[in-house]
Amino acid sequence: MKRAIGIDIGGTITKIGVVSEDGICSHKTSFRTKEYSKFKDYIDNLTNRITEIQSKFKNIEGIGIGAPNASKNGTIKTPANLRWEGELNIIDDIKKKINLPLFLSNDANCAAMGEMIYGNAKGLNDFIVITLGTGLGSGIVCNGKLLEGSEGFAAELGHFTINNKNRYTGLGMKGGLEAYVSATGLKRTILYMLSKYTDKSIFRDVSYNNLHGEDITKAADNGDLIAQKAYKYTGTILGESLANFVTFTQPEAIILTGGLVHSGKWILEPTRIAFNKKLLPFYKNKVDILLSGLEDKDSAILGSAALVWKNI
Amino acid sequence: MKRAIGIDIGGTITKIGVVSEDGICSHKTSFRTKEYSKFKDYIDNLTNRITEIQSKFKNIEGIGIGAPNASKNGTIKTPANLRWEGELNIIDDIKKKINLPLFLSNDANCAAMGEMIYGNAKGLNDFIVITLGTGLGSGIVCNGKLLEGSEGFAAELGHFTINNKNRYTGLGMKGGLEAYVSATGLKRTILYMLSKYTDKSIFRDVSYNNLHGEDITKAADNGDLIAQKAYKYTGTILGESLANFVTFTQPEAIILTGGLVHSGKWILEPTRIAFNKKLLPFYKNKVDILLSGLEDKDSAILGSAALVWKNI
Repeated sequence: MKRAIGIDIGGTITKIGVVSEDGICSHKTSFRTKEYSKFKDYIDNLTNRITEIQSKFKNIEGIGIGAPNASKNGTIKTPANLRWEGELNIIDDIKKKINLPLFLSNDANCAAMGEMIYGNAKGLNDFIVITLGTGLGSGIVCNGKLLEGSEGFAAELGHFTINNKNRYTGLGMKGGLEAYVSATGLKRTILYMLSKYTDKSIFRDVSYNNLHGEDITKAADNGDLIAQKAYKYTGTILGESLANFVTFTQPEAIILTGGLVHSGKWILEPTRIAFNKKLLPFYKNKVDILLSGLEDKDSAILGSAALVWKNI
Repeated sequence: MKRAIGIDIGGTITKIGVVSEDGICSHKTSFRTKEYSKFKDYIDNLTNRITEIQSKFKNIEGIGIGAPNASKNGTIKTPANLRWEGELNIIDDIKKKINLPLFLSNDANCAAMGEMIYGNAKGLNDFIVITLGTGLGSGIVCNGKLLEGSEGFAAELGHFTINNKNRYTGLGMKGGLEAYVSATGLKRTILYMLSKYTDKSIFRDVSYNNLHGEDITKAADNGDLIAQKAYKYTGTILGESLANFVTFTQPEAIILTGGLVHSGKWILEPTRIAFNKKLLPFYKNKVDILLSGLEDKDSAILGSAALVWKNI
């Protein structure tokens, strides 16, 4: 049985695992990314973990790495949520110690590859994956290939500016989609709804920093109108944006994944309604909105490992 | 010398020509598309012209056809500006009479292929072509390949809905880009500016149906404030939209072509200003806005013929 190593570099945690061709994830390990103030020390620890895996498994075909702001040429261009500065030559640095094929892409692209090989995009040639976590990430596949752009920074749809909206993103841009549609966006919308309406709400007693996604879902379930309005607002913006994205790549499906999706109908119903309303006539009933086919706990490692199967 | 036949099916005129591998267009001929009330009669005439060319030239490698609403499977799905109804099996119909490889794509995709092989996208792997004629068309190339979508209806950016604008398109959609950025959009904007401002303008004596692009450019040159404001408004919307498109595919260049571009600085200056202002920091100075590298008179035939060189 052939195997690949999948590595997901997150701002808080780095996850590593061994993935078989049929998608079984084993020998999982993780460590805190934030503990390493020097990138060199981080790489030393990472390569030690890889060497350990190599001593236990034969037939490792390669290593796939998902990271924020990964470029096409094997570097990470300092994203806001990693502590190291400048352009990090991660692939070159690992190569010095590990003799295996190495593949790097950004985390949302890995999510798209994971869906393609192990999840709900199996057999699809044209689809978009939207990851709804702290921010909004996206991976786009066209003609069966990842859409990377000239340097690897295609599919930055979290920064796509949306209709008639002017909330600022972390990059200081007005109207970026992720300022609305993400866990953070939902929290901001709770405050906006509290400012706009006079409904009673449990959130009138909660500060911004104490707002949590699960509590918002629970409140919506319990009939909290502010929570319900916030979800409707978020889903409507998402659905309208997805309909707009279809004019770009005409995907067969759009797959939603990430924490925000756990609210279930609260986000999905308004998304689907707005999507179908806005979709152009000649796309109607031809684009599915699906949920991820991967289990949350392993999806990042599976997605990174999928890079290996797509590239070797 | 290898040759291809390029055919451009327009609502008014069908153009045919022979194109050599190095981009020389010869034996050009054309006829009125609109004269044929039956699609069968149209095909008979078209195939006769092809047979005539075949009798004169050897080494014809194939035929490339550009048409509105061309699908991936060789059909045309009745677009608004052709008179025939239903789904037209153009490739099958021609194949019955002509024994040559046949390739069909929509006209804006052909424009992209033409730029790639003969024009200003030579050597580029990631670019977008925007055609600014009566409407707004687009062709997108990623990883060196045309982005077609699941059925061939990707890159319908004329219907992309833009920020905070609500003008209706021909499809009855609100805020579609081509309702603003196209020859027709510019005319509508002249009326809008006449309604908004009180400036004197030669266009206060001209009806909508008598408005022509060249006259608007001439008026702008002559200091007509309504004409100048209309161009600024149009270019600003175009530039902002192009900056948004970059988050999708991270192209190396965006190439503008079509009648509206003939106004030169009037459209280009506001486009570039708005584009650079709106572009995300990590894309800055990495995406060029270029004009077409093809001569207008042959560009449609060259583009269609380019399909052959890209596919055989």
